[in-house]
Amino acid sequence: MLESNHRAALASIVGPAGFIVAPEDRAAYETAARYGGGKAAAVVRPSTAAQVCAVLRYCVQTGIRYIPQSGNTGLVSGSTPDDSGTQIILSLDRLRSAPGIDVADRTVQVTAGTRLSELNLALEPHGLFLPIDVSADPMIGGMVATNTGGARFLKYGDMRRHVLGLEVALPDEAGTLLQLSGGLRKDNSHLALRQLFIGSCGAFGIITAATLEVHPRPKQAVAAILVPRDEAAVIELLIAFESEAGECLTAFEGISGSAMRRALARFPSLRNPFPEAIPPYVVLMELASSSPCEPGGSTLEARLEAIVTRLAQRESAPVTDARFGQSGHLWAIRHSLSEALRLDGPVVGFDLSFRRGDVMRFRRAAIELLASEFPDYEVCDFGHVADGGVHFNLVGRGGFETDSQRVSELRTRVHTIAIEDFGASFSGEHGIGRANQSAYDHFIPTAIQRYSAAVSDVFSRIPAAAVRFGPPSVERSNS
Amino acid sequence: MLESNHRAALASIVGPAGFIVAPEDRAAYETAARYGGGKAAAVVRPSTAAQVCAVLRYCVQTGIRYIPQSGNTGLVSGSTPDDSGTQIILSLDRLRSAPGIDVADRTVQVTAGTRLSELNLALEPHGLFLPIDVSADPMIGGMVATNTGGARFLKYGDMRRHVLGLEVALPDEAGTLLQLSGGLRKDNSHLALRQLFIGSCGAFGIITAATLEVHPRPKQAVAAILVPRDEAAVIELLIAFESEAGECLTAFEGISGSAMRRALARFPSLRNPFPEAIPPYVVLMELASSSPCEPGGSTLEARLEAIVTRLAQRESAPVTDARFGQSGHLWAIRHSLSEALRLDGPVVGFDLSFRRGDVMRFRRAAIELLASEFPDYEVCDFGHVADGGVHFNLVGRGGFETDSQRVSELRTRVHTIAIEDFGASFSGEHGIGRANQSAYDHFIPTAIQRYSAAVSDVFSRIPAAAVRFGPPSVERSNS
Repeated sequence: MLESNHRAALASIVGPAGFIVAPEDRAAYETAARYGGGKAAAVVRPSTAAQVCAVLRYCVQTGIRYIPQSGNTGLVSGSTPDDSGTQIILSLDRLRSAPGIDVADRTVQVTAGTRLSELNLALEPHGLFLPIDVSADPMIGGMVATNTGGARFLKYGDMRRHVLGLEVALPDEAGTLLQLSGGLRKDNSHLALRQLFIGSCGAFGIITAATLEVHPRPKQAVAAILVPRDEAAVIELLIAFESEAGECLTAFEGISGSAMRRALARFPSLRNPFPEAIPPYVVLMELASSSPCEPGGSTLEARLEAIVTRLAQRESAPVTDARFGQSGHLWAIRHSLSEALRLDGPVVGFDLSFRRGDVMRFRRAAIELLASEFPDYEVCDFGHVADGGVHFNLVGRGGFETDSQRVSELRTRVHTIAIEDFGASFSGEHGIGRANQSAYDHFIPTAIQRYSAAVSDVFSRIPAAAVRFGPPSVERSNS
Repeated sequence: MLESNHRAALASIVGPAGFIVAPEDRAAYETAARYGGGKAAAVVRPSTAAQVCAVLRYCVQTGIRYIPQSGNTGLVSGSTPDDSGTQIILSLDRLRSAPGIDVADRTVQVTAGTRLSELNLALEPHGLFLPIDVSADPMIGGMVATNTGGARFLKYGDMRRHVLGLEVALPDEAGTLLQLSGGLRKDNSHLALRQLFIGSCGAFGIITAATLEVHPRPKQAVAAILVPRDEAAVIELLIAFESEAGECLTAFEGISGSAMRRALARFPSLRNPFPEAIPPYVVLMELASSSPCEPGGSTLEARLEAIVTRLAQRESAPVTDARFGQSGHLWAIRHSLSEALRLDGPVVGFDLSFRRGDVMRFRRAAIELLASEFPDYEVCDFGHVADGGVHFNLVGRGGFETDSQRVSELRTRVHTIAIEDFGASFSGEHGIGRANQSAYDHFIPTAIQRYSAAVSDVFSRIPAAAVRFGPPSVERSNS
């Protein structure tokens, strides 16, 4: 509970519409997208960057603990409070205004509370899009704060690559609003401080707006599901496609047969590309092109089929079967995997990241370990082979009764193999959050933690009130 | 001059071959690539990262000032000492071992003293390259430290985009060697501290090695020089090419007729694409593809010509003339511009960066200003329209006698228009260095300078001795 003087003070900053205490109204903010949740003292919803600063300043001065939340689609309990009922949720969902599109610059100024889908809807008439592809509809603030990656990272990279400028509210006693860089692609005139706020989950300050580079929408895309000869063939296929289709290769995803089987069973509207028998492991890959068709009238589909045919004719061919189809139908399978596993549950999920050559090696080692030590879990993994990301998800065969001690042992075992034997990261793209706090404490070297804490300290101890840094606002003449 | 005890101590760290005091041997290190230079007390050339740490520790303990230098190809006096003769040059040119190529991962581990050309030679047999394109042959350490951009930024981005891991020697009393991230593409398990060392010119620590993502070499590339209808048509052309050729568009560079004329006059081996009359402003653009040819047998050249023809047939066509040619011949012109201007001299050079829509607007405003206030300078600009970078170079018409007061006024006038009217950066890609120190002091907000200095302080005050952070070294089995 929040003392009444704090309630009055916070409500006076954000106004009555921005201040929620009733439990039934808090619930949506307290409940995490997929796993867990907590209990908040209140939900505070500023509608301007200045209000964010005022709320932060108040929290710093009074010691009230706050959890920044934007789209609340994260998977590591980073945007929901603990169960104490003493933390407030600082929601950014009212920081939502029309994106400022600069067509000539191919950039957009966007506020933290804008959904990815809203941004892309605004960009569509200009033939542009923000090409971050995830199985959710997050808000831009959280996407920057967690450095969202996703399934088209191979071609387009993560949020870090798209952020050209940031507006950040700092947790200091002056209520500093920092404007970091002005949306320029090239700028080596000063330290790129904005990099510190990307991916640090709000720990250093709260992102209220960003300038993002966006991309021309592809005019055609084709996808295929390939059946690799064996484990080693997965990377052989990846290298071959990067060499042959380089700039058109937009995704190269691995999907275990066990995960695909569960998705097809849960969602009958999905089309089963393997009605006869689902292979143990497949690759979903996509080519896309900005050109409406190849010169000579040939299509991207023909190009994809030509490459696959060539590979299938090699001696010891890396691909033994292929299913071509509309990109949308095949991606629908990919994007339903997480939800299918959640419904089947209980899921013990891992968001691991490897050097690409280690993805299938780790998989074999972990499957062997689990078969002998944790046979009550089925490996239902999938992930982004081309960037080394593996959503190594395990589904309990015994239904929803879980033994938290055993789950904890399982997590430690898998993390230890991944990190100590293969140099993996325990959080490829989901961030840290409460869910990964113990892994952070255990696996991140103490010195790195100390440097990080010291850098964090810089932004709370130098109050600057209002720093404007960068070009004037976009004139909308180009949009 | 360095006291003899310091000379002995430094020489004992790096050995006699790594310690240079004779003026004739120092000269190459003291002289900058294009402009200026200074006088060093000694050149200290460590051959291992441990030696770099030991030298830094000694400098920190004794207060000796050091200038890190790798390829010494920079243009802002960032890698040469001042004229005092009291600073030492800490050269990284002996940190040079065979690149550790991981073909499956499409990454390479490379030491700071490796030249870009050496790295690319090692990568070539694997069909890979580091796609940073500059008119020089820098070393990797300096490229990371200055976040090199270059002419193919549009497609491939800057060094920041390629750095997956760093080894950094910190200027602290413990001689800390920091291993930051382990070469993973996706890693959100901790603060991305490496971002602080990229582009900060050695101010926070000295980069001794890096893990870089590299790319498949294109199998074909075609270039053209286009004559735009007028200033506004330059951005129209850029948007049209991004929409039509998206993933294949690798460069879109602007070149003033005045710069091209000087290059053609200086270097008779260059082929003049406009023997009749050089246009006032042209665009050099390039398409490249990983595919050896388009299916149906059609070539990238056909695709380029088809797009140009389509644009030329538009009403109020943005392109009025086009010269096609081998990519190498046209790029030879582009890469000889800087050197030609230097020979013609004196050059007052600017490395500006704008939002793309402002590139031609600034150009017009600046040309008007110069015509009225500085008619003794000719504008010989060129640059990277697609990323907003402009090498706004002015060549004095009166020969090599320069009036430093007047040059200083000229610099201030141009900077003021660019930065205050257009929100530009005074250093798009060259970094800060001694040459840009006064611009930094004047144009970068005090608060940003204070935050930067405080972050810098973090890395000198937390001694950690040796922090290993990331996966084990690459096994070379894949290469």
